Amino acid sequence: MKPLGPIPAGFAMIDGQLAIGGRKSRDLVAEAGSTPLFVYSAERIRRRVGELLHALPPSVALHYAVKANPYMPVLQLMSELVDGFDIASAGELGLAMAAGVDPARISFAGPGKRTAELEAAIAAGVTLNLESEGEAVRALEAGDRLGITPRLAIRVNPPFDLKGSGMKMGGGAKPFGVDAECVPAMARAVISSGAEWRGFHIFAGSQALSADAIIDAQAQALALAGDLAEQTGVALPHCNLGGGFGIPYFPGDEPIDLVKIGEALSTALEQRAEVLQNTQFCVELGRYLVGEAGVYLTEIVDRKRSHEELFLVVDGGLHHQLAASGNFGTVVRRNYPVAIASRMDEAADEVASVVGCLCTPLDRLAEKGQFPRADVGDLVAVFCAGAYGASASPAQFLGHGPAKEMLV
Amino acid sequence: MKPLGPIPAGFAMIDGQLAIGGRKSRDLVAEAGSTPLFVYSAERIRRRVGELLHALPPSVALHYAVKANPYMPVLQLMSELVDGFDIASAGELGLAMAAGVDPARISFAGPGKRTAELEAAIAAGVTLNLESEGEAVRALEAGDRLGITPRLAIRVNPPFDLKGSGMKMGGGAKPFGVDAECVPAMARAVISSGAEWRGFHIFAGSQALSADAIIDAQAQALALAGDLAEQTGVALPHCNLGGGFGIPYFPGDEPIDLVKIGEALSTALEQRAEVLQNTQFCVELGRYLVGEAGVYLTEIVDRKRSHEELFLVVDGGLHHQLAASGNFGTVVRRNYPVAIASRMDEAADEVASVVGCLCTPLDRLAEKGQFPRADVGDLVAVFCAGAYGASASPAQFLGHGPAKEMLV
Repeated sequence: MKPLGPIPAGFAMIDGQLAIGGRKSRDLVAEAGSTPLFVYSAERIRRRVGELLHALPPSVALHYAVKANPYMPVLQLMSELVDGFDIASAGELGLAMAAGVDPARISFAGPGKRTAELEAAIAAGVTLNLESEGEAVRALEAGDRLGITPRLAIRVNPPFDLKGSGMKMGGGAKPFGVDAECVPAMARAVISSGAEWRGFHIFAGSQALSADAIIDAQAQALALAGDLAEQTGVALPHCNLGGGFGIPYFPGDEPIDLVKIGEALSTALEQRAEVLQNTQFCVELGRYLVGEAGVYLTEIVDRKRSHEELFLVVDGGLHHQLAASGNFGTVVRRNYPVAIASRMDEAADEVASVVGCLCTPLDRLAEKGQFPRADVGDLVAVFCAGAYGASASPAQFLGHGPAKEMLV
Repeated sequence: MKPLGPIPAGFAMIDGQLAIGGRKSRDLVAEAGSTPLFVYSAERIRRRVGELLHALPPSVALHYAVKANPYMPVLQLMSELVDGFDIASAGELGLAMAAGVDPARISFAGPGKRTAELEAAIAAGVTLNLESEGEAVRALEAGDRLGITPRLAIRVNPPFDLKGSGMKMGGGAKPFGVDAECVPAMARAVISSGAEWRGFHIFAGSQALSADAIIDAQAQALALAGDLAEQTGVALPHCNLGGGFGIPYFPGDEPIDLVKIGEALSTALEQRAEVLQNTQFCVELGRYLVGEAGVYLTEIVDRKRSHEELFLVVDGGLHHQLAASGNFGTVVRRNYPVAIASRMDEAADEVASVVGCLCTPLDRLAEKGQFPRADVGDLVAVFCAGAYGASASPAQFLGHGPAKEMLV
């Protein structure tokens, strides 16, 4: 037997079924028409944003990283809730604009921006987080061609990363951003070019569950922003302090202590350098805003034993849940939180592996987990499916196509 | 510096550029309109099929596993070259039929077949490789509902896997197929139900580079098929001996010895059991037929240094090349064969990492490889891109969308 990840707190049960947004799983599936189905809870997203607004200093803006979940109704909801959007491609620019987001609230980071993407962003009035000196040249040239003043920030490759404490010298070679020591000269060049100067984007890592690590990274980002602004010789208009707030996926994971992070950030901001006094700060979050709000529902199509191991074969799989299958950015496979959505009130008295419908041994959604006895037709829920699920999985693999999605 | 994988033999160079199908990379990109671009060589696919037809015993049929590359022009070409198609979903059934493949030549394996998929396959006249007793019941019921006699084979979970020798007792619990010891009774039940009996599908593994391991697995599959057919008490009409022929991806990998495999299979077939005398055998290959015929071309959009590491940032990435980035089924990341397609005649005199345009450190196509000096606008080629590339990668990730594809 292997442990399952922790189910996010706050999901209700109605008539023995997992309820999302106050509605039973089977009713949601009936409305969607079929499984597999991603269900995102608007109420959970709102609640999470409320927790952040409560915990973080009021002066700090909240940005949403579209890459975490670009489903249009989620973007539309988010546009009412957050201050800014961060995009990573012209495709995401199109999605954000289709969701009605004012381009002035959008910033664009990403190491391989094509010239056509730079032009589209400049034409729309989006802030570009420049990833290199070469990209700065191309952006300025694009602005000239278009006759539009580009809005430019610099993404800084910081000399620290987001881990525990004591990482100040841990920075290394990265494809992202500009090495910190090169930033002041580049910032001066951007400013003197006549571009609209938008400041720094400092991103040190993602998916951290240690409040202390996040506090440390934010403090270092703040100090670095002050140093670089001072060396640049110009007050800093904006500073994106990055994100990195993680969610619990695996056995033993605990939620981050948001209040502690907010208090520390408040203190750090009070002590910030003079050159940062009028800076507009933001944090940029994706997974933390939407990850726990999503559930992936998939139906059991076969129940079979092989050499004493019990398999529940579902109609979904890694083509929608690559990370949950353990095949995306993880070395050792561990179980996500998984449950039998149609039998939430029954005792977990058998051990089964939940496998997807793909013809590959990689397609496992839960390995030797303890579940109530489930049969063909039962629904399996994979939790923490709101971020990097539908859009970060190979939906066309083996011809199955994408899952349905629903915001409730 | 880290070594790069071996470039498949036989690619030509014209005017210093990588040529595919006799055409220069830049001309192919110009015709496609943009990068990233998958180019598949019809001539390489034909040559590979020719090698197989020459090496394998004439009585053994050749099947193509659609999952390896479902690009329509590839399917259409393949339908002229091979005897049968193996599909893994109703989606792939639709593709194969759209390519003009006679459903009588198609078989359908996959552990999570939905009832609607079983019905579509039975209606079309496709052979179902049954994965469990439950699926057999559902298939027979579907045939009754439709008034059509289903064509049924059993996928056997063999008590061995495809590795080196001496694996006879190495079989284990798997979500695929029916444990060998349960097969004879199930086969008798299927036959007595009035279904059209199609035989066994025995698949022991994939991507093996040892001829001896493949020879051993084929011999064991043949012996198992004989035992199971004898226990069933009926001569075996068909037997799919599986695939598993690997291609070299990584430094040190060598091509398999196809002639040796063919000779051993010929000998094994001569010595096969009486109950298999009239059996039609086939091997089912995907990657081996198309993998080395494909090249992924992507353009360099930035060249940057960070702390003494040189990065070539391209407009493609793991959203088309998940396996090449080291994030699909591999534990330790190693480099695929990668080259600067627009500078094939220049000396490799600098070390660079080729990274994709996605905003994640997972997006590396080559780590610290030795290349000619390349700049913005140069083309990078990732080889061995013909199988499990376009269709087995998260194309929607970060909003970039799928790559173009082309058969030349």
